[in-house]
Amino acid sequence: MNYRIIISILGRILTIEAGLLAAPLAVAAIYGESPWPFLWTIALALAAGGLLLALGRKKTGTLHPREGFVSVTLSWVVISLVGALPFVFSGAIPNYVSALFEIISGFTTTGASVLPAVEAVPKGVLFWRSFSHLIGGMGVLVFMMAILPTDDEHSMHLLRAEVPGPVKGKLMPKMRGTARTLYIIYLVMTAVEVVLLMCGGLGWFDALTTAFGTAGTGGFGVRNASIGAYNSAYVDVVVGVFMVLFGVNFNLYYIVLVKRSLRGLKSQELGLYLLVIAAATVTIALNILNQYESLLQALRYSFFQVSSIITTTGFATADFNAWPSYSRGLLVLLMMMGACAGSTGGGTKVARLVIVLKAIWWEIRKLLSPRSVGRVTLDGERLEDDAIHNTMVYYMLYALFALGAFLLLTGEGHDLETTFTSVISCLSNIGPGLNMVGPTGNFAFWSAPSKLVLSLCMLLGRLEIFPVLTLFASGVHRRRLN
Amino acid sequence: MNYRIIISILGRILTIEAGLLAAPLAVAAIYGESPWPFLWTIALALAAGGLLLALGRKKTGTLHPREGFVSVTLSWVVISLVGALPFVFSGAIPNYVSALFEIISGFTTTGASVLPAVEAVPKGVLFWRSFSHLIGGMGVLVFMMAILPTDDEHSMHLLRAEVPGPVKGKLMPKMRGTARTLYIIYLVMTAVEVVLLMCGGLGWFDALTTAFGTAGTGGFGVRNASIGAYNSAYVDVVVGVFMVLFGVNFNLYYIVLVKRSLRGLKSQELGLYLLVIAAATVTIALNILNQYESLLQALRYSFFQVSSIITTTGFATADFNAWPSYSRGLLVLLMMMGACAGSTGGGTKVARLVIVLKAIWWEIRKLLSPRSVGRVTLDGERLEDDAIHNTMVYYMLYALFALGAFLLLTGEGHDLETTFTSVISCLSNIGPGLNMVGPTGNFAFWSAPSKLVLSLCMLLGRLEIFPVLTLFASGVHRRRLN
Repeated sequence: MNYRIIISILGRILTIEAGLLAAPLAVAAIYGESPWPFLWTIALALAAGGLLLALGRKKTGTLHPREGFVSVTLSWVVISLVGALPFVFSGAIPNYVSALFEIISGFTTTGASVLPAVEAVPKGVLFWRSFSHLIGGMGVLVFMMAILPTDDEHSMHLLRAEVPGPVKGKLMPKMRGTARTLYIIYLVMTAVEVVLLMCGGLGWFDALTTAFGTAGTGGFGVRNASIGAYNSAYVDVVVGVFMVLFGVNFNLYYIVLVKRSLRGLKSQELGLYLLVIAAATVTIALNILNQYESLLQALRYSFFQVSSIITTTGFATADFNAWPSYSRGLLVLLMMMGACAGSTGGGTKVARLVIVLKAIWWEIRKLLSPRSVGRVTLDGERLEDDAIHNTMVYYMLYALFALGAFLLLTGEGHDLETTFTSVISCLSNIGPGLNMVGPTGNFAFWSAPSKLVLSLCMLLGRLEIFPVLTLFASGVHRRRLN
Repeated sequence: MNYRIIISILGRILTIEAGLLAAPLAVAAIYGESPWPFLWTIALALAAGGLLLALGRKKTGTLHPREGFVSVTLSWVVISLVGALPFVFSGAIPNYVSALFEIISGFTTTGASVLPAVEAVPKGVLFWRSFSHLIGGMGVLVFMMAILPTDDEHSMHLLRAEVPGPVKGKLMPKMRGTARTLYIIYLVMTAVEVVLLMCGGLGWFDALTTAFGTAGTGGFGVRNASIGAYNSAYVDVVVGVFMVLFGVNFNLYYIVLVKRSLRGLKSQELGLYLLVIAAATVTIALNILNQYESLLQALRYSFFQVSSIITTTGFATADFNAWPSYSRGLLVLLMMMGACAGSTGGGTKVARLVIVLKAIWWEIRKLLSPRSVGRVTLDGERLEDDAIHNTMVYYMLYALFALGAFLLLTGEGHDLETTFTSVISCLSNIGPGLNMVGPTGNFAFWSAPSKLVLSLCMLLGRLEIFPVLTLFASGVHRRRLN
C-alpha cells in the first residue's frame, strides 16, 4: 500500500477544511461572536495538513482500489476529528466524543444531534454545523476533484468509493468535468432554495442553513422545533419539494440539463421513488387524520415527513413519534429504503430495491418454469449477475451491521424501539428515530462507546459500507510506511 | 398443470389425517370427555378425502416442480382447514378463524396460541394441539412418503419443497428409505424424551405432549405457565437439551447413526449453532443475573430460553419479556436466525447464515485484491454460485414478507415491538414474541384479517416461502381443471 499518497490526500483535505472554516468564522464575525473557536481550529488544520503534505508524496505511482477506499474513509475520519473542535472550543459541546458524533453526523448528512436545544448555541457554530451538510452532501472528495487538478485514474478510485448507489458506470468518463457540473447543479439548486425561503420571510441565516440541511439531505436545523418553528405552509412546501428534488439521482439532472434529453425521466428508480412518496403521503395522511383539523393539513404534515424521511434528511414539522403505529412503522421502513442512488440521500437506495425486486421476480419465474429464458433488466439495459449479487451482498451487510450495532447498544438497557431506530437512523443517515430519539429527543443520552458505534454506523452508511471495511480487513495494516 | 394428481394427493392427506385423529379421540375417551368433536371431524375428513380421491387420478403423468410445490402448500392448507374443527366443535375456540390460526400454528410447529389459559381446555383437544406439532415436525409429506408407496420421482419434488434448508442434495438418492429412517430417528428421540420426562415425575399426558412440542420444535404446552409450571431443574434441562438436539440437522444423525461415521459432526453449521447457543446462554445469564438468586439459576433460565428460541420451539420457564434489553434484543435476533437446516426448527437457518457470511468475506477479499483466486466452500465442498444466490434471495424474501406483514399489522395500532415480534415469531415459527405476545401473552387480540396474515406467515416460514409463492404466481390459475 502506498501510504505516502494517502497521507498527501489527507493533508490536502485538511488544508481545504481550513479554508471552509472561513465561512463560519465570517458568520461569527457578523454576529459579533468570539472568532477564536474557528481561528484555533483553522490554525490546527493548517498545521496538521501542512505536516501531512510534507510527509506525503505527490503523484507517484498509481492509486490502487484499496488505497482509494482507505483514503476516502480516512478523509472522512480526519475532517471529522478536526471539524469537531469548534464545538469543543466554543463550549457548545464540551465533550469531545459528543462533538465528534455531532460533526460526523453533519458531514455524513445524518443530522442526529446531541444538542437538546440549538437556539442558545452561537450562530457561527450553528452555521458550521449546517455547512457540514453542504460539504458532506456531494462528498468531500468529489468536491476536491472538481476544483483541484489530479490524475483521472486516481480520481476514479476515489469517486467509486464516494458516490452512493450500485450503478456508477455512466459517470466514469470525463469524471472531473462531470463532477464539476454536478457540483454546479447542486449549488444552483441550493441557491434557488435560499431565494425561495427568503421570499417566504426567512432571514438569510435561517434560509442558508435550512437550504444547506436540505441540499445535503442532512437535517440539522437552527431552531429547536426544526422547520416546524417557521409555522408556514409555504416554507413546508418549499423545503418538502426540495428534499424530494435532492433525493433524485443527480445523473438525471445531468442528462436532462446538460444533454438536453428527457430519457433520464424514464428511470424506473425515479418511478418507484415518486410512487412510494405518493402512496406513503396519502396513507399516512389518512392514518393521522383525526390528529389534524383537515385532510389538507394532514397531507401537509404527512408529505413533509415522508419527504424528509425517505430522502434521509430528518427535518420535522410534527412530532411523528406521537403518530399512530402505521405511520411510525412505515416511516421506519422508509428510513431503511432511503433515496435514489447518486443523490445526496442515504439509506439502502431505491435503485437497490428495484434490482432486488426484479431479481426475485426472475427467480420465481425460473422456479416455475426452469427452462424459461429471460434477463433482469433495469431501464432497458441488462443487469449483470455481478450487479445483482453485489446489491444483495450490500443488503446483507446493511442488515448485519444494523443488527450487530443494535445488539451492542441493547447493553445500555434502553427500550428496543429507541435502540433499533437509533441504529437505523444513523446507518441510513436520517437523523431522528422513534421514542427517545424521536423528533423532540436527541442522542445525548447514549454513552461515549455507543456514540462511537453510532458514528461508525453513520460513516458506514454514508460510504456504503465497503470502503470502511477495507480499513478493518486483514493485510491493510501489515505493511509499514515505506 | 395436472390438477387431478394434486387433488388425489390432497385426498390421501385427508384420509391420513382422519387416521391421526384417532389418537386424540382415544385420549378423550380415557379422560371421559365427549368424543363427538373428533368423531365429527374424522367423518368430515373421510368424506372430503374420499370425494377428492374419487375426483383425482392416481399416478398418471409426471409431477412437475410447480405441481409439487402447489401440492405441498395446499396439503398444509387442507389439513389445517379440517384440523381446526375439533377446536370449534369442542367449544375450546368457537371462532373458526382463531381455530384455524391455532392449528396452523400447530402444524407449522410455531406454537403461537390464541388461548389465554390452556388448563381448562379438554385433554383430548390439548392432545390434538400438541400432536399437530409431532405431525408437522417432520413434514406431513415426508411422513406420507415414508409409509405409502409412490414414485420416487413424484416424491422428490414434494420433498424438495418440504425439507427445510438450502442444501438438499445429499438426501435425494433413495429418498423414501431415507425418509423412513429419519422418521424412526425422530420417533425414537421423542420416545426417549417421554421416558426421561416421566422419570422426572411427569404424568404420561404431560410427558407425551411436552415431548411432541419439543420434537416438532413447536412449543404448545398443556400448562398455563408452559414448562415453568413443572418447576423442576431436571425437566428444564431435559427439555432444554432435547430442544437443542431437535434443532440439529437430521442428516447428521443419519450419517452418525446409520453410516456410523463421525464426519457429520464436523459440520460448520453445527459448530456455529452450538457456539451461538453457548455465547447467548452465558451473556444472557450475566445480563439477567440480578433478577435471579445465583449464577447457576440464571444460567438455567438463560440456557432454557436460548435453546427454546434458537430452535424456534417457544417453550418458556421465565417471562423473558421482563428481562433487560440485551436479553430481549438478542432473543429477537435468535428468532430470525433459527435452527439448523434439515431439522424440525424454523427461522432462516444457521446454514444460510454460514453461507452468507462466507460469501460476504469472499466479496471483501475480491474487493481488496480483484485478482485473488478463491472459492466459497462449506464443509470442504465448493458452494456453487447458484446456492449462494438462492440463499440471498431467500433472505430478501424473508425480509420483504416480514416488513410487508409488519406494515399490514401496524394498521391495528398496537405498539411496534408487539407488531414486529408477532410477525417474526410467526414467520420463524417460534410462538411467543415480546410485549403483548410475550410468554405470558397470546395472539387472541389480533383481528381476524391479521390472524390470517400471521397464518400465512407461519406457512411461508414452515415451507420456506418459495412453494407458497407458486400459489400466487401468475399462470397457476390460468388453466382449468382438465
